[in-house]
Parts: sequence; C-alpha cells; structure tokens
Amino acid sequence: MKQRLLTPGPTPVPEETLLELARPVHYHRTPEMRQLLSEVVEDLQYVFQTRNPVLVLTSSGTGGLEAAVANCLPPGSKAICLIAGRFGERWRSICKAFGIEPVAVTVPYGQSVQPEQLARALQQHPDAQAVCATLSETSTGAAHDIAAFGRLVAATPALLFVDAISGLVAMECRTDDWHIDVCVTGSQKALMLPPGLAFMSVSDKSWKQIDKNPTPRAYYFDLKKARASLQTGDTPYTSAHTLVRALKVSLKKIRSEGIEKLWTRQARVAAAARAGFQTLGLELFPSQPADGLTVVKVPPEIDGTALLGKLEKQYGLKLAGGQDQLKGKIIRLGHMGYIDQFDVLAGLAGVELVLHEMGYPLEPGRGVAAAQQVLAQSGAR
Amino acid sequence: MKQRLLTPGPTPVPEETLLELARPVHYHRTPEMRQLLSEVVEDLQYVFQTRNPVLVLTSSGTGGLEAAVANCLPPGSKAICLIAGRFGERWRSICKAFGIEPVAVTVPYGQSVQPEQLARALQQHPDAQAVCATLSETSTGAAHDIAAFGRLVAATPALLFVDAISGLVAMECRTDDWHIDVCVTGSQKALMLPPGLAFMSVSDKSWKQIDKNPTPRAYYFDLKKARASLQTGDTPYTSAHTLVRALKVSLKKIRSEGIEKLWTRQARVAAAARAGFQTLGLELFPSQPADGLTVVKVPPEIDGTALLGKLEKQYGLKLAGGQDQLKGKIIRLGHMGYIDQFDVLAGLAGVELVLHEMGYPLEPGRGVAAAQQVLAQSGAR
Repeated sequence: MKQRLLTPGPTPVPEETLLELARPVHYHRTPEMRQLLSEVVEDLQYVFQTRNPVLVLTSSGTGGLEAAVANCLPPGSKAICLIAGRFGERWRSICKAFGIEPVAVTVPYGQSVQPEQLARALQQHPDAQAVCATLSETSTGAAHDIAAFGRLVAATPALLFVDAISGLVAMECRTDDWHIDVCVTGSQKALMLPPGLAFMSVSDKSWKQIDKNPTPRAYYFDLKKARASLQTGDTPYTSAHTLVRALKVSLKKIRSEGIEKLWTRQARVAAAARAGFQTLGLELFPSQPADGLTVVKVPPEIDGTALLGKLEKQYGLKLAGGQDQLKGKIIRLGHMGYIDQFDVLAGLAGVELVLHEMGYPLEPGRGVAAAQQVLAQSGAR
Repeated sequence: MKQRLLTPGPTPVPEETLLELARPVHYHRTPEMRQLLSEVVEDLQYVFQTRNPVLVLTSSGTGGLEAAVANCLPPGSKAICLIAGRFGERWRSICKAFGIEPVAVTVPYGQSVQPEQLARALQQHPDAQAVCATLSETSTGAAHDIAAFGRLVAATPALLFVDAISGLVAMECRTDDWHIDVCVTGSQKALMLPPGLAFMSVSDKSWKQIDKNPTPRAYYFDLKKARASLQTGDTPYTSAHTLVRALKVSLKKIRSEGIEKLWTRQARVAAAARAGFQTLGLELFPSQPADGLTVVKVPPEIDGTALLGKLEKQYGLKLAGGQDQLKGKIIRLGHMGYIDQFDVLAGLAGVELVLHEMGYPLEPGRGVAAAQQVLAQSGAR
C-alpha cells in the first residue's frame, strides 16, 4: 500500500534529498564543507528573511530554544511566556530549568494569545528580559500574530524569542521586519529534511545581551562559540554534516520557488484543508489557524484513536492525533514542506471514507469538492 | 578517482546503511519506532558491554560529555580531568562552563596519563566527585588504561566519566567490568554512521548522584527525562530517528561479527599500520597507541600539509592532520568502523608514494610489506 506521511513533522523528504543522504560520507573540516555551510547559511537567511547570522545546531528544535534562554538570559531574570499549547509550555519549562522566572500568559488550548495580552504583560513586567512566543503552536494548530508581538516588544528592552519550528517556511515569517530577536526552527518540518538539525537567527539586540551575560550556562549550545566558528564556515563541534549537505538540496527547491510564492501556496492549501474538513461538519480546533497544519475536533461520537488507526491501516495515511489531554480528541493534518494540495486531497478523502465507514453521517466527496473549490477560486500558483 | 575516507571520524558508512538513510521518512512516535529504539538500545548495551541503560542523544559526542557533567556534578564540586590532548582539554572546558572546579592531571601531547598519576590525584583530592578520562585521545592517537583507572575510581565515591568517542568498538572497552560510570560515544566513528547522534551509558552510581543533584543545569540534555522516555522506547524530544533506523543496520554488522572478535581484528589492523609506518622510518606520535587510529610524526624535512594535500589530490586518500599546535606535524590515519586492513594498506601505499615523490628516502613497498607481515603473522580472523 502506498504510504503518505501527513503529520506536522517529521514530514516527507523529497527523493533528491533522500538520495543525497545516501551519498558517501566526506570529511567535515574541508574548504568544500566550509563553502557549503556558508552557502546554506545564506540560503537560510533568505528563508528566515533576516540579515542576522543563522546558526546551525546538531540537535532537535528544542536545543535551539534552550540555546536562546541559556545564552541570553541570566539566572534570576524574568521572561514572559505566551502559552497556547504544549510548545508554549516548553518555553516555560526551559526558563524554569535555567533559573529564569517565567511570567505565563496563558489561553486555553485552541486559542491564540492576543497582542493586547502581551501589551498588558509588558506593562506589568517592564523588567522582563524576554518574551517567548510560538509562531505555529504545533500541538493545537494555532497561529500567533508575531508581527504585532514584534512591534510591542521592539519598543521595550526585552528580546522576542520565537519558536517557529512548525511555522517557518510554512507561513509568512519575516524575522527582521517583525523584530524577531531569536527565531528557531528544526530540519524536519517545512525544510523537508529528516530531524537532527536546528537553525536559529540571532539579532544584534540579542548578541548585546549574550555578550554581557556574566553567566551563560551553555557549552554545547554556546552561541558565542557558534558565531565565531560560523565566521570561518564551520561549527564548534562535529555537525550532522550529511544533513547539512542534504539541506542544500531542499533549500534549492525553496529558493527556486521563492519564499513569498511559497507562503501564498501554503495559505491556499491550508484554506482548502479547512474548507474540506468544515464541509464534513468537523469543527476547527484553533480559532486562529496556522498554515502548516490543520487541526480539527473529532466528532464526539467518533473514537479519534480508532479513526487514525483506520486511516493508517486501510489507506496508508499517517495523520497525527492530539497529545496529552488532547489524545483522541483532535486530528492533526500536516501540509508543509513536501506535502502539496493533492496530498491534502488524499488526506481529506481518507478521512471521508473512514468516517463514513464508522457511521458518521456525511456524503463522500463533499469535503474533497469543497477543498477543490477553494483551490480553483484562488487560482494556480 | 576512487575516494577513500581514512580519517578518525567521520568514517566511511557501509553502503547498506547509506541506503537505509535514503528510505522514506516515517512518523517518529509509533509502536514500530519504539520497538526499534528498544532493539537498538539492547544492541548498544552489547556494544558497550553494559547492563546500564544506554541513552540516545541527538547531538555530537560533546553533547554527551556535557550531559555527564551537567547532570551528575553540582556547581562548586571538583572533578579530576586527565588531559593528554585536545579532548582531555574539552573535559576541562566543560567543567569550567558548568562551574565545576577542574583538577588537571596533564601529560605532554603524545603521552598517556598513567594510573599512578590518577592514584596520586585521588589521594590529594578525596573530595573529587568525578574523574574525566579519554579512552582514545583522537587528537594524538594515545590510549588510556581505563581498566586501571576504573579500579582506582571504583574504590572512591567519585564517578568515572569516559570519552570513548573514537575508542568504543574500535578497541576493547568493557563498561561494566571496568567500572565506567558514564561512557560516551558518537555515531560517526566505529559505529559506522554519519554524525548526529551521541550514546551514553549511565551507571547506578551515577544515577544516585543525578537523583540527588539539587541543581542539574540541563534541559535538552536532562538525563532523568531521557531515562523516563527510554522506559517506553522513546526520547524526550524529536530524535534524529532516521539515523537511529540506520544504526540498526550498522549494529547488526557488529553483532554478527561479535565484539571481542572485532576488538582483536582492530588490534591486528592497528599493529599492521604501526609496523608499516615505522618501517618507512616514521615515528609513532603516541607512546601508548590506540587501536582506532594511528598517528605518526611527519619527518622534519617534509611539509605535512603538502603531504596530506597530495594524498588527497593525487590518490583520493583523505587522512587527517594535526589540530592546533600539531598542525603540519602529524598525520592521523583512521582504521575503525568500515575501514579494514586493505584500506590501511592503501593508506600506507599512498603515503609511501607521496613521500617518495617528495624526496623522502624510502624504498616503495617496504611499509606495505611490513604491514602484510603483521597481518600474516596474526592470522586471518
């Protein structure tokens, strides 16, 4: 049976990138590898829309989040954590682990933190040294208005840290224009690679904090060392360099399409997915949905875990469920990276067939047709 | 031109393992992936010769070294660092970064720290909470008598941390019998994978320290979280799971040969490499050489950087040079993992040809023949 990976990460990897991963391993400290890393970093700057250096870490995205906190914030300082799901919670946990006082601004899962809430928190905590936000909250499918957050934070001494792990490339994200001080992503989402690398841009405002931080608690994630190595096209420690080589292949695809065109295409696919699910009577879980994944509530009469199991076993469609308290209650369809509009149609078609089989009242084809309508109306791109 | 990667890491990756890396990406949180990780961990326990859990980190080996220090040692504590090269120095730097007082026991590069030196340091510093050692010092090719260190440390409350990054599998290393409390290796050496993963075994004695450490300074490298996840065959954060899948292929090769047989074969190849170089009149750099790499001094009249350049350009042979103050002064030939005796003959043959061409007095063939003599005398295995 043909398998389709439709989760919000790891995502499918293009065949050319996979083949690159099967090429023989070379030595990592050579002029060729330094040249390659420099090119990759330049491509990443384009993808991030930043003139700041983009550092390459051999870790999951969480390593990048930790690097931001451990390098920029001295223990005893305060950080405002905007929490709308599991990954907002992760910011809070990292702050706690490094002795930073987290000021939590929380909304129920499925909601998004509003700019007014951040404005109030900044007023109440003028001593906050950072604001930790999430572009796309992968656990709920909610997006945040990072541009608005950026305008607020830029007017204060605080730094804006953004977890853009499932957001970057999957939806509009303008690191410099939006005043993002540290923007973090991982390899296994819209960058179309297997997991193993994290990437982070670091602004001048952040470097000033890093350079004056008397007690950075980082060695492997020491950003000053990473910056110094990057100047010679290198990394402080042995990096997952075959992944870096493969990244070049995926980045070429992105650059040849153009990032703004890609954002528009992503938005269109996301709109189609939402229309499809809603036409089937499935309610969107997030009130302010992200473009890289669509999350819907499982109808109360349907067993969500059984639904996902049938999709996988009967049709080779791998979608993700909810985590922790959302287990069995939501399904998450990824549509970023190497997942296109027709893969989304396949996902919707599978959901229709399985729901129909499970006795849920629907007319097969209506969800797919609704998605098609959206695609047709927004024109080919 | 046929390329041969003969560096002490990254090392060549078997073709079957490379092909595994080109297989489609699957979701990472599935019963199949949990089963696979559990099998891989069991294989790693065999390879480490330990009954302790072996944790899988998505990082370079250095991440594993940091994890040992950051989790086991409270700030203000003391650690004896045995320093015979760049990687011994790394232990000291990590300790400093985490507020641990390093007590350095140093020997000149090329030498190995002797058990008597450690015995004295332990007597002088009975309050040391750890001893940081290196099985194979990759920067100099020196081996350490970890078995002897282990007997000494086991009689004290201190923990024995061993950087076995270029040593594990490449030479005898019996984690439990030798009382190693934390043994760390990386994927890109004798385990025959690209870089990107670190593996570490953690003893009961270490867990006791970890569990009572009031101030672990780790989030991404939090070993308690890693231990808890491992119990369900998982990792706390998204791991480089396609590398884990590929590791299974490489581990199968190791298990089918048998670790003791492999150690013997490694020792035999190392002896052949040493005999070959010495017959050419090249002096061994380490006084107590490791089995995974052979490091020799470049004759004073020869430009070491030019020698390595010619090997690469004219013959496709990639050997490593010295780092920092040893640049141009030594050459390092790796012979671990997927580098066998005949690859070593190729390396020796190339060195003979290039040295001859550079006007160094030698009779081409004598080094290769001497290596062959050693291989013949020690019999096929």
